[in-house]
Amino acid sequence: VTGAGVLRAEIHGQPEAWRGQLARAGEVGAVAAALAAAPPSLVRIAAHGTSDHAAVYAGYLLRARCGWTVVRDSMSLPLYYGVRAAAPGELAIGISQSGQTPDVAAWLARARQDGATTLAITNGEGSALAAAADHVLAVGVGPERSIAATKTYTGTLAALALLAARAGGGPDGLDATVRGLRRAADAAEAALPALERAVAALAAALAATDRMYLVARGVELATAQEIALKLTEVAYLGAKAMSATAMAHGPVAALEPAVPLWAVAAPDATLPAVAEAVRRAREAGAPVIASGPAAGALEGATWTLATPAAPDPMLAPLLSVLPGQLLALELALAKGLDPGAPRHLRKITSAA
Amino acid sequence: VTGAGVLRAEIHGQPEAWRGQLARAGEVGAVAAALAAAPPSLVRIAAHGTSDHAAVYAGYLLRARCGWTVVRDSMSLPLYYGVRAAAPGELAIGISQSGQTPDVAAWLARARQDGATTLAITNGEGSALAAAADHVLAVGVGPERSIAATKTYTGTLAALALLAARAGGGPDGLDATVRGLRRAADAAEAALPALERAVAALAAALAATDRMYLVARGVELATAQEIALKLTEVAYLGAKAMSATAMAHGPVAALEPAVPLWAVAAPDATLPAVAEAVRRAREAGAPVIASGPAAGALEGATWTLATPAAPDPMLAPLLSVLPGQLLALELALAKGLDPGAPRHLRKITSAA
Repeated sequence: VTGAGVLRAEIHGQPEAWRGQLARAGEVGAVAAALAAAPPSLVRIAAHGTSDHAAVYAGYLLRARCGWTVVRDSMSLPLYYGVRAAAPGELAIGISQSGQTPDVAAWLARARQDGATTLAITNGEGSALAAAADHVLAVGVGPERSIAATKTYTGTLAALALLAARAGGGPDGLDATVRGLRRAADAAEAALPALERAVAALAAALAATDRMYLVARGVELATAQEIALKLTEVAYLGAKAMSATAMAHGPVAALEPAVPLWAVAAPDATLPAVAEAVRRAREAGAPVIASGPAAGALEGATWTLATPAAPDPMLAPLLSVLPGQLLALELALAKGLDPGAPRHLRKITSAA
Repeated sequence: VTGAGVLRAEIHGQPEAWRGQLARAGEVGAVAAALAAAPPSLVRIAAHGTSDHAAVYAGYLLRARCGWTVVRDSMSLPLYYGVRAAAPGELAIGISQSGQTPDVAAWLARARQDGATTLAITNGEGSALAAAADHVLAVGVGPERSIAATKTYTGTLAALALLAARAGGGPDGLDATVRGLRRAADAAEAALPALERAVAALAAALAATDRMYLVARGVELATAQEIALKLTEVAYLGAKAMSATAMAHGPVAALEPAVPLWAVAAPDATLPAVAEAVRRAREAGAPVIASGPAAGALEGATWTLATPAAPDPMLAPLLSVLPGQLLALELALAKGLDPGAPRHLRKITSAA
């Protein structure tokens, strides 16, 4: 199996990986119940890269479902500037697919020393991160063989969704999200073949593209950021994501016919802000890729990669990221790169 | 005066603008004393673009100096998802150079309704944002005529530095920061001519560059993000900033001889992480621009744009951003663009 084949298999294997997680929903529920018994005054999260995009998702999810405010916290403040990492009554969460990221593990250990309750979310059970935590949420999607994270990203979102459902909605909330994830897995499986065909055509059109901007607003901002990273690390694109509203505060100047805008649209009150960014991009002559469950509502898109509406809007990001993962793979192939082995990268990032 | 001339004058006028702010340090001190009398349980900040980079700075500054945790908060959660914006006992800060950014003003008004203490930081006194706030911190650097923000950025940093100094260190702290800003203004004025010459040579070398990555760690992360935005909006570069450690989690794959890395280095415990990112970039064959007060400590840099050591490390970002502002201007000129009037942009961003 080539590197491309491994990555493709991991992308397509995500629905089955989510189903596998449901078998352990009771474990997630027990952690969530313990946390909800003494709701945290503040949630601090430390993570890098793809795991940091899961933290962006957590910021929307935990606030909307549990009323918990999330800070994507600075690791530098405690590790380099001598500031306390956290305080009693707070929940500190470290997210790392391998569980081996040194500064995330060091930060979580510091937060525990400072009296916070600590939670590790990782696909690496028995890792340094897990050892530093009071509670461990095992993502449990099995070993990820590609360097670019795909199933560990959506698996982390699924674990967070289960956690928030139980912490904010009790056992009934957990049951509803288990059903929602099952339906999301079915919807993803049904949608993947057509998405893959659409993305292959788009990759051919974008083979000479070297820059792209991505926008979203609300919870799909996590999706835009994660797609930007996949396109960067797998297809070497200069891709940058931002809030649809922030685009007007400068970056719109960089749009032009050779620099597309990718807009991830949700069918909710955030849609007008995303539609306005698309309008501005069209004025600038930039081609527009519309994706997400409300892709069809964006007028003037050059390409549309709609993803199924999720049974629960907070589960939509598991589906919305799929076309971005696929495009990173196909665009790398269109450029003659090996999407399974991006240059200069290691699977476990050991740099402090 | 051409657009380039206006932008150049505003960049060079920053030291004098900071001195002008010191005449009103007493007003800032009074606001800070009022806030410190009932320290906030949490600080929430909403801002876009350049103002959001000032919020990144505030996250380090207010935690290090006052022990206050800062969330760069989601505006979407209250404005689109119906979640409460804030709670009593919290401090909500809206930052906008014009004070006219609609969603920042709407968010601050919502936070006030929800019982938080509210603070507007703006160069637009009498603006919608100021009207929505309990307290106003007037940046007071005079009208900014260029579309790209320069003196309102460093002026906002200076106002924040005075606020944190008084809130965390009392009247003596305020006096020390007044003296520190005066010395920073002198140091900036002394350094600008040589920086301008070095940047002009660099701009000629980079005229064909269309992508760049920027890294820093700790408080200079605000600088890296702001330089990336200046290069994007004025010189249409695909520039993206990230933590030096996050670079190894994916984006390092996009580095190559045509894609430089700009590293902003501070002379503190964050330096090894930045040096490691530079080492990885050199391995990838990417040219390296080293800047910041510890630029000289980064081995293997292709170009070095050192800025003076600040009297107080928390004031260094006012100086560190100068070469980025200058490069945006010179690179636009080298590319035949008008740096005073970036395409598609408006000075006051009205998009919701």
